[in-house]
This record gives sequence, C-alpha cells and structure tokens, in this order.
Amino acid sequence: MKVAVIGGDKRMLFAARAFLKDGCEVSISGFDNLMSMCDIRVMDIPDAVRWADIIVLPVRPISGNYLNCPFSADKTELDELMKIIGDKPVFSGCADHLKQYTDCMVFDYASREDFTYRNAELTAEAALGIILNDYECSVFGSECLVLGFGRIGKILSRCLKALNADVTVAARKLSDRSLIAVEGMNPVSYDEIEYDKYDIIFNTVPAAVVKDHDIDRMRENVFIIDLASTPGGVDFDAVKKRGLSCVHALSLPGKTAPLSAGIIIKDTIISMIKEEKVGKDKTRLCDDRLLLHLG
Amino acid sequence: MKVAVIGGDKRMLFAARAFLKDGCEVSISGFDNLMSMCDIRVMDIPDAVRWADIIVLPVRPISGNYLNCPFSADKTELDELMKIIGDKPVFSGCADHLKQYTDCMVFDYASREDFTYRNAELTAEAALGIILNDYECSVFGSECLVLGFGRIGKILSRCLKALNADVTVAARKLSDRSLIAVEGMNPVSYDEIEYDKYDIIFNTVPAAVVKDHDIDRMRENVFIIDLASTPGGVDFDAVKKRGLSCVHALSLPGKTAPLSAGIIIKDTIISMIKEEKVGKDKTRLCDDRLLLHLG
Amino acid sequence: MKVAVIGGDKRMLFAARAFLKDGCEVSISGFDNLMSMCDIRVMDIPDAVRWADIIVLPVRPISGNYLNCPFSADKTELDELMKIIGDKPVFSGCADHLKQYTDCMVFDYASREDFTYRNAELTAEAALGIILNDYECSVFGSECLVLGFGRIGKILSRCLKALNADVTVAARKLSDRSLIAVEGMNPVSYDEIEYDKYDIIFNTVPAAVVKDHDIDRMRENVFIIDLASTPGGVDFDAVKKRGLSCVHALSLPGKTAPLSAGIIIKDTIISMIKEEKVGKDKTRLCDDRLLLHLG
Amino acid sequence: MKVAVIGGDKRMLFAARAFLKDGCEVSISGFDNLMSMCDIRVMDIPDAVRWADIIVLPVRPISGNYLNCPFSADKTELDELMKIIGDKPVFSGCADHLKQYTDCMVFDYASREDFTYRNAELTAEAALGIILNDYECSVFGSECLVLGFGRIGKILSRCLKALNADVTVAARKLSDRSLIAVEGMNPVSYDEIEYDKYDIIFNTVPAAVVKDHDIDRMRENVFIIDLASTPGGVDFDAVKKRGLSCVHALSLPGKTAPLSAGIIIKDTIISMIKEEKVGKDKTRLCDDRLLLHLG
Repeated sequence: MKVAVIGGDKRMLFAARAFLKDGCEVSISGFDNLMSMCDIRVMDIPDAVRWADIIVLPVRPISGNYLNCPFSADKTELDELMKIIGDKPVFSGCADHLKQYTDCMVFDYASREDFTYRNAELTAEAALGIILNDYECSVFGSECLVLGFGRIGKILSRCLKALNADVTVAARKLSDRSLIAVEGMNPVSYDEIEYDKYDIIFNTVPAAVVKDHDIDRMRENVFIIDLASTPGGVDFDAVKKRGLSCVHALSLPGKTAPLSAGIIIKDTIISMIKEEKVGKDKTRLCDDRLLLHLG
Repeated sequence: MKVAVIGGDKRMLFAARAFLKDGCEVSISGFDNLMSMCDIRVMDIPDAVRWADIIVLPVRPISGNYLNCPFSADKTELDELMKIIGDKPVFSGCADHLKQYTDCMVFDYASREDFTYRNAELTAEAALGIILNDYECSVFGSECLVLGFGRIGKILSRCLKALNADVTVAARKLSDRSLIAVEGMNPVSYDEIEYDKYDIIFNTVPAAVVKDHDIDRMRENVFIIDLASTPGGVDFDAVKKRGLSCVHALSLPGKTAPLSAGIIIKDTIISMIKEEKVGKDKTRLCDDRLLLHLG
Repeated sequence: MKVAVIGGDKRMLFAARAFLKDGCEVSISGFDNLMSMCDIRVMDIPDAVRWADIIVLPVRPISGNYLNCPFSADKTELDELMKIIGDKPVFSGCADHLKQYTDCMVFDYASREDFTYRNAELTAEAALGIILNDYECSVFGSECLVLGFGRIGKILSRCLKALNADVTVAARKLSDRSLIAVEGMNPVSYDEIEYDKYDIIFNTVPAAVVKDHDIDRMRENVFIIDLASTPGGVDFDAVKKRGLSCVHALSLPGKTAPLSAGIIIKDTIISMIKEEKVGKDKTRLCDDRLLLHLG
Repeated sequence: MKVAVIGGDKRMLFAARAFLKDGCEVSISGFDNLMSMCDIRVMDIPDAVRWADIIVLPVRPISGNYLNCPFSADKTELDELMKIIGDKPVFSGCADHLKQYTDCMVFDYASREDFTYRNAELTAEAALGIILNDYECSVFGSECLVLGFGRIGKILSRCLKALNADVTVAARKLSDRSLIAVEGMNPVSYDEIEYDKYDIIFNTVPAAVVKDHDIDRMRENVFIIDLASTPGGVDFDAVKKRGLSCVHALSLPGKTAPLSAGIIIKDTIISMIKEEKVGKDKTRLCDDRLLLHLG
C-alpha cells in the first residue's frame, strides 16, 4: 500500500515512519524543514496524491483556511488540496471541519475509540511529567484532585494513585463516583469539592468548572494543570491575580511523545482499513471507495 | 428513625446492626434461628410494621410466593405481607418483582449504582477467594481470561492484574477494549478468544457465552468460575463431560462477606433517604410518602 | 537425566510431573494411594535409587525417624533410606535435619532464595485466600496489620495494598519502616502497635509477638491469621478465651497451590544443577559428586 | 527551639520554613539572593550561631574549602565556620567530610535510613519526570531496564511497573532477583543483560557498569538516564560517539522537589533529636552535648 503523509507536526513524521516499518511505501509532503529524516521519500503534494493509495492528513488538519503545516514554509489552501485529492481515500483528524472543503467522505481516525484512549494515555503521562518536573513537592503523599472521569480523568487518576498520591476525583454521575470509590479513590460531586484541601488540581473538563471563588479558596502553593482544550476550564485571570502556579497544557502527546503518537495514528488507520475489508464492525468508512483503491 | 428489617439471609442481619450503629432504632423479624444476636429487638412482622418508619426487605425478597426467609421456620405470603405493610415506605431489592403484590411504590436499593458497584467489589473478592483456595496453581503468573467488562469484570480484572496475573479481558465494545489495553491488560473481542491459552476463566456475562466447542479447546487443568446468575453462561454439561474444574458461584457477597454486604445495604438506603429530602438527584423515591413518614 | 522423587505430599507429585515435562525421565515412590496419576512410572525405593541420577526428597523429609510419606501405607526408616541412597546426589528440604542419617552431603533446595521467595508468594496468596473466604468483611477498605517485613510480610502487605486495604506493617528495623512508608503503607515499630485499630491481623514472625494483653485490646470482630510455623507467634489460649476468629495456617502452599509449589521445587533443583556445572555462583553443591553423576 | 539554617540550595530554605511551621524559631544565613522569602528572619552567620540552639548545614555542605552556599555572594571558609560554631550541635549531610574542619561531632541526617529512603523516592519521581518529558515515546508499554536494586532501584522500578512499562531489573544478589521476579518484574544478573532489548535504561549503580560495548548494542532511539553521582556509571564518551539520548541526572530532589526535600530534612532532624531524648534507638547523637543544649 502506498501512503502519502501530508502536513502536520512531528508525530505525523513518526506516523510516516511507522507505516514504512509496517511494510508500506511512504511519501511525506510539507516537512521541508526536517530534511534530515531522509529515510522516507519527499514528494510535492500533487505528485504524492497521484502516487498514493491513501492520503493521511494531520490530527488537526486546519490552520486558518490552510493545511496545518508547521514544518514547511509553503502554504497550501485546503480548497486547493481537497480538489487535488479528489476521491482518493483520506484519513484525517477533525474530519467534520473538512466537510466545507470537500464532498468526499473523510475517514476520521481521531474520533475512533482506539485512537482516543491511547492518546488519552499519552496525555495523562505528559500531565504527570509536568507535575514531576515543575511542582516543588513530590506526587507521593500529595493531595490530588482530578476534575472529570472521562478518558483522561480515568487514566490520570489511576497513574496518580499508582504513585501513592491521595486521589480525589470529581464526577457528575453516581455510577462514576461509585466506580471511583471501588477503585480506592475518593469520589466527590462538583458541588462538594473543598478546593482548599488539594496540592495539585488537574482539570480535564472542557467547560468553565474552576471559578474565581474556587480559586480564592485554594492553597497558596497549589499547582493547577488545565488539560481542557482552549479556552480551558480554569479562570486564568483569577489564577494570575492570586499568583498561583498554573499550566494550560495543550496538544501534549504531539509535544512529549511524538513517536508513540505517530504509531497510534498508523495503528488506527490500519485497523480502520482492515475492519472495512472484513466488514464486521460498523465504521465510518464507505465501502466502495476504499475497496476500489485498496483492492 | 425506626427501621424494621424483615427476612433475608445473614447480610440483612448485618444491615440491621449497621442501622443500629448509625443511631437508628431497629427491629428484626424472620430470624428466629439466630437468637444469639440478641442486641437487636425481635418483633413479629405485624408489630414490626406498625412500629417502624421504614421497612427493609431482602436483596432477593421472593421465594415462591413467600417472603425469602431462610432463617425462619415460618412462611409469610407476600400478598399478606404487602397488605400489612400498606403504604409505609418499603426498601427492597428486585422491586419490580414485588409489583404484583402491591400498588404502592417500593424503593429499590439494589438497582442503585452505589449499591451495585460496591456489591460487585465484594463479588470480585469472593471470586478471587475461590481461585486462591481451590485452584492448584498460583494466581501470580497465571493466564487469566475474564469474559465481560461490566462492573464485576472491571473490578475483578484489576484485582487479578494487581496480583501479577497476565490478564485478558473479552469485551464487545471497541471503547471497552481500548480502555482495557490502556490499563495494561490484553483486550479481545469474543470471536478472537483462544480458549486453549488460559489457566483460569471467569465468566461475568449473563448469556450462553462459553459453548461446548470452546470447552473442548480448553487446557486440561483449567479452572472455570461462572459468576453469572442462573442459568449461568457456561455449558456445564460439556464441562462435566470433559471433567474440568468448574464452579458456578452464586450470591457470593451474602456468603463470604455478609458484614460488608449489610453495611452497603444500610449505606444505600440512608443515601436514598437523604437525597430524597435534599431533592437534588432524581431517584425512584416518591416524595410525599417518604416525607410523610420521615418528616 | 533420571529423577527419582521419593515421598512427600501432593506438591512432590507435581514436582515429578514438572521434571517429566522438562524432558527428564522420572520415577515416583511412596505414592501408592494416588495410582490415578499413572503417567509417571512407579518404582519401589531400592529400584528407584539404583535407576536414578538424582534423588529428590520432600520439603519436610522427616516424620519421626521415618521418611515423611503421607500417601503411602509403608514406613521407611531414614537410616535405611540414606544407606540405600549411598553417595548418589540427594536434593531435599531441611537438609540439616538429615545430617544425623548420612555422611554424604545433601543439597538443600528449600534454603535457596529463589525457592523461598516464590514459596513465600504462594503462602501470601494462600493467606489472602483464607481471608477472602472466611472473614465476613471485604479486604477492600479494611484495616490490616502485618507483623514482620520478611519475605512473606513484604509480598503479603503489597497484595493487601493492591486490593485497596489500608495496610500497616510492623518492622523492627528503621530501614524497613522507611521502605514501608515510601511504598505507601503505614510503618510501625512493635512497641507502637495499637491493636484496637485493625480488622485483620497477619503474623509472619516466628516468635511470641502477639501476647494476651494485645489480644485483650483487639476489636471484637478481628480476624487473626498466624503464618509462623509451630508454635506460632500468637497466644492462642488468650484468643480462645475471648472467642476471636483465628487461624493458624501451616504448610499453605502444599495445600492450596501444590502444582505451583511442585514447579518451584523442580525449577530450583534445575537451577542448582546448572549453576554447579557452570560454576559461577557459590552454591551448596559439592562439585565432584554431582559432576560425577551428571557428567 | 532555635534553629539556624546556614547555606545550601532551595531545599534548605524549605527546610527552614518547615521548622518554622513546626513551631521552631528559625533564622537563615547565606540566602541573600532570595530576599523575597521574607517570612523567616535573616542573620549573618556569627549572630545566627550565637542565637541558635542547633545549626543546620546543607546536604552537601562543602564546595572547595568553603561552605556550599550557591545563593550568596559571600564566601565562608569551613575552618572559620566550624570555629564560630564551636561545640553547638550541628546537623549536616556528609558529616564525614566535615571531620577535617572540627573536632566536635556532627550529626549526619543524610546517612539516616529515613532520610535516604524518602530522598530516594523523590529521586525516582524526578527520574520519571525526565523520561515523561524528554523521551519521545510513552512509558506505558516501553521496555525499561533498571540497573541496581538498592533504594532508588527498588522505588523506581515499581513506579515504572505501576505505569505499565515492561520492567527488567539487573541485580547481583540471587535474593534480590528472586524478589524482583515475585513482584512481577523480570530479573537479570549483570552478565545476562541484552542491551538491545530496551527503550529506556536507568543506571543507579555508582560504578562503571555500562561499558562501550554495551552501548554499541543499544537501540538507536534508546533513552539513558544515569542517576549515579559523579562520575556516573555510564561510558558517556561512547554514548556521545553513537549520538544516543543520555542524561546524567544529579541532585534531583533539590531541583525538582525542593519543598518535599526540605520537609524530609526537617523531619529527620526532629526524629534524631526525639530519639536522642527518649534514648531508645542507637543513633549517632552524642547525648551530653545535645541534651546540654536542648534541655
């Protein structure tokens, strides 16, 4: 299978490598500043599209109206790109956002559960890494609060417990709180949180959860990490006013574990293709087009 | 608050004790064979109902058309019992099954998430206890297969991993399998299971999952525990024919950890009452009646 | 290699099987009541000794002045047995106790660290199994006290913590207590123990540690397990007087996990032989004799 | 009690604060560049010594022939300092190195087991933090090798396992390797290490363990952390020649967790003083002098 990886950050490059290791033929486009990774062929975009069986776009493919392509000086309009691609099968993150540029279906690898869970694992590790480096106390023995018990909240809270922190998790649903208790952590509902009890506070909820009056009650040497994507869930103005330590951590896996993030992208796409051929699970792939190209 | 605990096994007795410790007044009925626990007042059923503010019935309240009352020689018809109870608030397990005997609402503590999770934890421990006692190998280093990733499957698989078994979990949903992988266990879908690879097999799925041809492929010294309620999920005839070790483990918490099971019943009922008064969560309690009785 | 397994309980039989699986030729003697395991040849002792390259005796080889041989009606005097064996290499537990019967060296597999640790793991699992079956509460959330931080204490306390018990470990040495703290458990020195705080108490210390005045202070529904070999470390008379739940658990691995215990015996003997040949580690083997027989 | 904290890095400042919180009177000397922490009184050294009951010096007190005092422009000769101190009780790390400057006993807090274990815990966390930030893969699912099973090796390897890495530990002693196996990790002796199997390699051994031919066999994208104090245990020249990722991580707790490190210093000194007064354990304190000063 011929794979064209077009645009994106370091993890897309590692995705390209991972395809190569799996026995695919691979080309990359949009990485002219990283010429040193010369084990993969470099093509310009039109050639790559013509040559390839499948096109792989970044986890976040859009920057303005252009392809998100931080390692290249050239700018590629998405309109233009999608026209070139035509009806070749495209795998991309945030497929919904690409709809305005194409009528063809885009296969969204970043919305698959196997992608999101493994990505959440990388995010949890990265969050832990920030704490271990920047917080002036140990995680061992610290009082940690994790807001939210979704994918990242689940994995992160277990990591913290494994390192012998005292972990409290805030969750809305009684079923989640019951599971939290049974796993040996302290469950709270959002209206029960006592913000003055914690040394480290992680937010994973994409909503305005941590308000100014919550911040007023926090310990002076608290460390806050907000993992929710922009605008985050913490009132950063209130944090600044009190002079607390706070990090708004974004796109963590791409930064701290690009190799693993790249492998996950490759694995997910390979799974999607296999499932499609086998036809067992319901995925977002449209049969005809992919089978046409991949035989 | 005056609590009448009527019928059930040892855990109901411990529930009675737990209410007593919490400062309630408590009576028990239907335990004439356990007179030694004389720290709680014994009443006959009509007196108890008249005296009490709330009535607590067993996790499984029905046996035939009678109250499930294994520690008493007397038989109480449910029709009769529900008539005596009238419109006093009743807390029971399996409330649905009581509908045919009463028009009044019954508050079902056993369907609440806080009850089911903690009960699942006790069941997982009990299953572990069976293995540790009856299986001729160690859990450490064994190849374990857990069928199902519901409440019991989740808790049990983590316990096994914590004891350094090599754990594989079968789950239908991709999201579950993704979480299983991220927790450091091996996920499989049901059609991928290789039954010849495992030393210990736990079934938690209430459906015919383990079929005769699966059993044919199992290791000779495999140990099977079926935790699904009757009729279970394992083809017991096929198991017997091959002479494999197999346990169909039922009502575990009531047998192996009645004290903890009793506390959970008490905790759940207290939570239901509190939530009702505060009125925050939507529960199955009907306001008027309970408030009438509990003030 | 020809291996004669002579005497002992079920785990010696499983050791015999493990040798067989490893490609050795194997005979058993002293198991006339277990004829069903007919996949291994049965020999009488003199024939077996003549035929074999190495002789394997039980973990506890002595019962009175006879070979410990619970599955046989025949009695074999040790004097006699050791004479028959002559200078063939013998592997046995408790080699010191055999000295009075022979001038030849006996290789003690049960004093090796690889044996003792793995055996301790089995013992810890078995102790856990007793609690999970016989204690009326859950381990989850219970207050556990482990007396001693030797092999069994180390492994057992970690298992309990893994199951989300609140674990306190008593240890004499400051270095041990420091490690206990760092592992997220509560360290105490022996004179600081508050016996009224615990639900489950495990003793691993072979000395009179738990005295009558300690027992007087314990909770009414405490569960005590004494893992120290006879006479144990708990004042059983005081326990009986107060009517507390207490188990003196002896030879656990042989009872609850004979298959694993047998494999460990086989593994250890194989390691001893290999090391001897390679000659890297200092072991208790005397070169000449073993090399003579094993070539 | 009046405590004079003299010299050292940020953790000594946090130690000063910790004494303050415990109700001691505290002065600091040698921190003229950190005036912002104005909640503690600043004294020059002679005044501080005169005023104090005990003197606290840094974990590493010596830099050349001067007091190790990175946050001050002034230089203090150790000869001079020890003369000023006279026979007041001094608590310091590396007490042995101070012998050449004084005849009086120095109480060494850094050689105590309670200090070294908790410090090792901080070091292990810091090492983990480096990996999580600087290594391009996840710890989850990685192949980790830990050289050495002393304090740091023990704690670090368990942390890695808790984060679901596949952990191998190299240890010289059979007893250590047996424990490693029983904890669910892979033990190796040093001559069995296959250096090409690992993604991350931690050295904790203060000796030349990782030689050039070992480095030749490592994976291209390996990440090496050497935690052994200067000169370390890794052949850094060979590492550089191959262009591998390698960090020689020194004084970790002082850098990444100074607050916790400070608390540990305070706790240890308080324990030493208490034990001395109570007189139960044998410590390095000489009774008379300390009792003289502390009453």
